[in-house]
Order: sequence, then structure tokens, then C-alpha cells
Amino acid sequence: MTIQKLDLLYQGKAKAVYATTDPEQLWISYKDQATALNGKRKEAIDGKGALNLHISQRLFQVLAEAAIPTHYVRTLDATSMLCQRAAMLPLEVVVRNFASGHFVSKFHVAPMQALEPAIHELYYKDDALDDPFINDDQVLTLKITDARTLTHMRQLSDRVNAVLRAYFENIAITLVDFKLEFGYLSDGTLVVADELSPDNMRLVDAATGDSLDKDVFRQETGDLVAIYREVAKRLDQIV
Amino acid sequence: MTIQKLDLLYQGKAKAVYATTDPEQLWISYKDQATALNGKRKEAIDGKGALNLHISQRLFQVLAEAAIPTHYVRTLDATSMLCQRAAMLPLEVVVRNFASGHFVSKFHVAPMQALEPAIHELYYKDDALDDPFINDDQVLTLKITDARTLTHMRQLSDRVNAVLRAYFENIAITLVDFKLEFGYLSDGTLVVADELSPDNMRLVDAATGDSLDKDVFRQETGDLVAIYREVAKRLDQIV
Repeated sequence: MTIQKLDLLYQGKAKAVYATTDPEQLWISYKDQATALNGKRKEAIDGKGALNLHISQRLFQVLAEAAIPTHYVRTLDATSMLCQRAAMLPLEVVVRNFASGHFVSKFHVAPMQALEPAIHELYYKDDALDDPFINDDQVLTLKITDARTLTHMRQLSDRVNAVLRAYFENIAITLVDFKLEFGYLSDGTLVVADELSPDNMRLVDAATGDSLDKDVFRQETGDLVAIYREVAKRLDQIV
Repeated sequence: MTIQKLDLLYQGKAKAVYATTDPEQLWISYKDQATALNGKRKEAIDGKGALNLHISQRLFQVLAEAAIPTHYVRTLDATSMLCQRAAMLPLEVVVRNFASGHFVSKFHVAPMQALEPAIHELYYKDDALDDPFINDDQVLTLKITDARTLTHMRQLSDRVNAVLRAYFENIAITLVDFKLEFGYLSDGTLVVADELSPDNMRLVDAATGDSLDKDVFRQETGDLVAIYREVAKRLDQIV
């Protein structure tokens, strides 16, 4: 059976999500668009969608090989992947191995200070509330999710961190921090969903310390496509 | 041996702390001053110090009767208490039984929505950082305190909540939320320190829903001294 793209379900800043002829599967297209400042700055960038698709599929495969469940099924074309439909949790999990960005300004610590053990932070995805930082008590009492799910998300985030950190080390890249989102499949499996690209993680060249992620766009310090292409190239070196 | 007041150690917004002739004890004076807007608004209020001393000593005694360790030793005069010297932890613990104040605006929930189980929040006391909201991971990895202390603070906060909530219920007052600070005595005992007054807790009249705390000053909706005197009067009714 050939899968076909049906109605647009969701139009995000960097991705569009469509229904398909299989009610359990979604068609996710990666767009040639970058945003910063919570969407206030927006730019079309030729080639970004294909690079993010390429990097994400690779990293989802790496997680699958480590037996970490994800929503990724297979790649459809240069900018689209087929994914399992998941009931998304309205939480972002940020895992930090080194201090960077907002964390540095919040705590006045040195950029790239090692954070051992890695710090997990939760943000409540709610546009009207501006995605606030939230603690476990607030999540549970406001019934955003239950304790079992929080524990499971934390365990999966730790495993993702261990796998990706080691994987990037092989290609001389340091995984500084990253953001994950999770969802439940219809069979009750909790999976890593959304995307795994330099839009959602901070990467630095282990030799030079140069940014290899969206910070070059946020801070206007480099060519996003050239940088993402460098990450994709290094990932392709590993078989 | 008569205790004597020595050097001023710390001048706060609502209290002054002095060394005494006993190196293990502090002389804490409650001031006739109220502040709001993080100190930007400041007013002298005759009688506030004596009322806060009176309410705090009573609540510290209530905790002591429930075998909850506190820094309170005894009352010295109308505005001063003798306390054990404690190495203070740079954390504020906020416990919320009902939604109010900042929590309502952060999560767009209804004022006085019941929070079951009560929500604990930690704030990192650091003026330069503006006392940020912090999670357990951040506390531990930044080595602000250790896991054993966090667990102990949480247990003590729950016990304080249970004791004070029941105590206020007896006098027709609802304990909405409150802030605690903790410190270690030289013998290693973790104690409830700082003060326990309507400056640091939200109280409402169980019958009318009227504020019986510093919100009447923050929002300029009532006479702070009259309100605090009402709380003190009700506390004095219980033997």
C-alpha cells in the first residue's frame, strides 16, 4: 500500500504535519524556514528543510538502534518523513550537559561550564502562557501528566542523552544541550517525537568550540546552511 | 547569664539581626517597615514589628509543640526574639494549598483553585540573579545543597503545612500559601528559620474570603496593622 498525504493537521514554524491514508501515521514535512526571538524573526532559508530531515532521520535511527522508541517510521522524500501518530504531551524536556544560552544568564555561570549530572528542565507548552518553566509538583498537581509518565520521560531523556552524546563525540562534536518532546502511541508506548536537529540542540565543534547549530542564526554569526551541512556530512561519515 | 545584644550582623527589609554574648544565638528585631515590589516601595508602619514578633513567636511555638525543629529560643522584648544561629540555606521554599498571586498569572488558573497535593516551589536566594525559580536538578548540579537536605526540607515543609493549616482552620483562617527558609544549627539539625508572619504567608478569612496578610499592603486594599492585629487576636484565642 502506498501511503498518501491527506489534510494539513498542523502548520508549525519549521514543520508541516499532514494526515495520511493510514490513520495511525503522519506525514511530516520539514520547511525551508528559520525563526528566532520566539517567532518574531522569520527567514526563508533554501535547503534547511532537507538538511533537518536528513539529520533528524539519522538521529532517530541511532535512537532506534539503541532500542529507544521514537515516532519515526521511514523517510518519504527529501524533506518528508512518515511518523507514528502520537498523542503529544504538552511538555518540553531540556537536557543540559554544559551551561549555555538562557542558563548562563539565569545563573551567571561560565559558558560551557560542565553540568554533572546533566540538568533536566521542563517547560509547559502553552502559547498563551509563553511556555513557562515548570517543576514536577506543578506538572502533577495541575494534572499536565502523571508521575509514571514524568519518571519514564526522565529515563528516556537520560538514555537519549547518553546515546547522542557518545554518537556526536565520535564525530568531534560536543552535545551541549537539547530539547525533546514526547507522545503516546495508540498502543500506550511513550515515544520520542518532534524532530532531532540543530534547531533543537546546541552542538559545538569539539576542536574549535565553534557553534554547529541554530545559534549561528539566532546570533547572526554564520551561514546556517553551511553549518547544518557540516553536521550532516560528519554524521554521514559514520556507518 | 543575661544575654546581651552585640554587633549588627544583617539589616533586612523587615528584620535586623544582631550577634549576642552567646556565639550560638542571635538577637532578631522585627522592624516597623513594610516593603513591596521587591523593595521598591517601602513604608514605615507603626506597630508592625511588634505584631509580626507576636505572630511569629506563636507559630514557632506551635511548630515546636509538633516536634518540628525551629531556630526560635524565646522572646526578649516586644519586637525581639532570641534564636539559634543557623547556617542559612540560600533557598526559599514556597508551599501552595490554593492558587494565588504570581501562580494565578503564571498558569491562568482561577484564584483560590485548590492545589491537591500542595505544590512546593524552590527559589534561589541571590539578589544579583533576582531570586530565580529553580528546580531540584539545578539545585543539585549547581551544588546549592545536597539531595539529603532537599528531601529533608520537603518533609519538614509538608509537616509545617499540615500543622499550620490545621491551626489556622481552628480560628477560621485558610492558609493559602507560605514561604519557609531553613538553616543548619552547629549540631547539624536542620531547622525552620526566618519568620512566620503574614509578611510570608497568604491568609484569608474562611468566612468572608478577605485577605489577612501583606496583600492588603501590596494591593493597597486595607490597613495592614488592623489586619495583622486581627490575626494576632485570633491566635491569642487558642490556648
